[in-house]
Amino acid sequence: MLHLIGLGLSHETDITVRGLETIKKCKRVYLEAYTSILMAAEKETLEKFYGKELILADREMVEQASDDILAGAQEDDIAFLVVGDPFGATTHTDLVIRARELGIKYQTIHNASVMNAVGACGLQLYNFGQTVSLVFFTDSWKPDSFYDKIHENRKIGLHTLVLLDIKVKEQSIENIMRGRNVFEPPRYMSIEQAASQLLEIEESRDEKVYCSDTPAIAVSRLGSPRQCIKAGSLGELAEYESGEPLHSLIVLGNNVHDLEIDFLVEFADDPEAFKALITKDAENFKKEVKIMSYSDDDDE
Amino acid sequence: MLHLIGLGLSHETDITVRGLETIKKCKRVYLEAYTSILMAAEKETLEKFYGKELILADREMVEQASDDILAGAQEDDIAFLVVGDPFGATTHTDLVIRARELGIKYQTIHNASVMNAVGACGLQLYNFGQTVSLVFFTDSWKPDSFYDKIHENRKIGLHTLVLLDIKVKEQSIENIMRGRNVFEPPRYMSIEQAASQLLEIEESRDEKVYCSDTPAIAVSRLGSPRQCIKAGSLGELAEYESGEPLHSLIVLGNNVHDLEIDFLVEFADDPEAFKALITKDAENFKKEVKIMSYSDDDDE
Repeated sequence: MLHLIGLGLSHETDITVRGLETIKKCKRVYLEAYTSILMAAEKETLEKFYGKELILADREMVEQASDDILAGAQEDDIAFLVVGDPFGATTHTDLVIRARELGIKYQTIHNASVMNAVGACGLQLYNFGQTVSLVFFTDSWKPDSFYDKIHENRKIGLHTLVLLDIKVKEQSIENIMRGRNVFEPPRYMSIEQAASQLLEIEESRDEKVYCSDTPAIAVSRLGSPRQCIKAGSLGELAEYESGEPLHSLIVLGNNVHDLEIDFLVEFADDPEAFKALITKDAENFKKEVKIMSYSDDDDE
Repeated sequence: MLHLIGLGLSHETDITVRGLETIKKCKRVYLEAYTSILMAAEKETLEKFYGKELILADREMVEQASDDILAGAQEDDIAFLVVGDPFGATTHTDLVIRARELGIKYQTIHNASVMNAVGACGLQLYNFGQTVSLVFFTDSWKPDSFYDKIHENRKIGLHTLVLLDIKVKEQSIENIMRGRNVFEPPRYMSIEQAASQLLEIEESRDEKVYCSDTPAIAVSRLGSPRQCIKAGSLGELAEYESGEPLHSLIVLGNNVHDLEIDFLVEFADDPEAFKALITKDAENFKKEVKIMSYSDDDDE
């Protein structure tokens, strides 16, 4: 049987009791090590805590050698550990589909992930629209599909959770050319870079989806002992020092409820100024949508 | 200190190791008992597992007597246990705001909730729009704000998670009039009733947001040993026998990805027929949106 087990957000003890019991009886235990990191625990800490050796599974192994992971799982118990919840990333769905094809039973032991734990900032989960991803821009590659999705969310008043890029096992072009298995240090996008990239795309697309005064929330090290939540404008967050990873960014919708505001202001340097940003954003954005909806009609 | 601890979805062992360690050191332990239920464990099972007596906290206590819950939490450790994750429901945000006012520190120990574990059905979480709630209709009260929200989601191709009503500690009008503290048995909305109520509102509003052929997913007893996922049309699910609670319903968006379909068809009685529903829904809905967007323009 394949056991997909979520590890939660940060500590080695964030695993569930049932997850831990299951690991202990498994023949092989894989740790997925490319979509996220467990913030307060290293591989060795986990191995000691579980009393089991862990096999690191990188993207290549999961996507191209999934049959090795699943070998013998018709009879043996195999665990596949994922930071957060196992169904946060597409590639794990692939693994389950492959298991089914091989006649392998599976079960999921769920855990918290940023997708639900982000409620800790005080925004209500049912006021979020679709979640978007933001990748590291290069000089020639600045994918901006997130911009249209934030627009869709904001048109109907909803908040947007922006998941920030993680790069592990990157190779330099020189090392790829020379066939050297040398990897760059892992990179995790900071709040500063995320907010700057968002504003860069607003500047080039200029569809007034948001601006440097748009209220946003920086969620850093969610669920860890050093969790930090900061409320400010996108312009302020572009100059924020967010510190150690992991980070997520939330762009507020233009219809923030009073109870959400009451909770959020605790995370603002200047609560009154932050409330004013929310009011201004709601007014600004309504105006802009009106203008845009006329111009949309003209295009038809 | 106030410790908000998520219990996860089903088993007493779905609590995290850190959550369990924290409960054991707490002076008082409250169990929130009105927004959800832990499916595979009763209060007595939990008390035995934790080695602690639990105080049941109903809505009245949390909303009107929160200071009793928080009494002494400036010095003592008090635990507040919530099925799923603590930030799934509005009233818990209130409790934290009150704790802050009283100068009480708090921490959250997160866990899985339906909001992220629903990914187990194979739909990608980033393809979901806003989540909606569906309450038990009465002859005179059929609130339908969910209808507009499903519409907003489907206009941009997104899935909608529909959370189904739970009624605990209900009193009959006769018992209220006579001042008798007698409560009705708890009620949990079934998939059949949810799908029927959705179709009832489509019939009365007639804005072609969905129809009896719209593909949907019934998620029953998520995370429990008797978890069951069923893919079918809303019309089929209105006649489904969903069995023991808890249930959630997903109305598919009209832009289902191939990988999502590959995973979903396993849950359909007739995979080819279900695929055909998805194709038909995408075509139907695009047509209807076109018609509606013209009529919207006319209204301006």
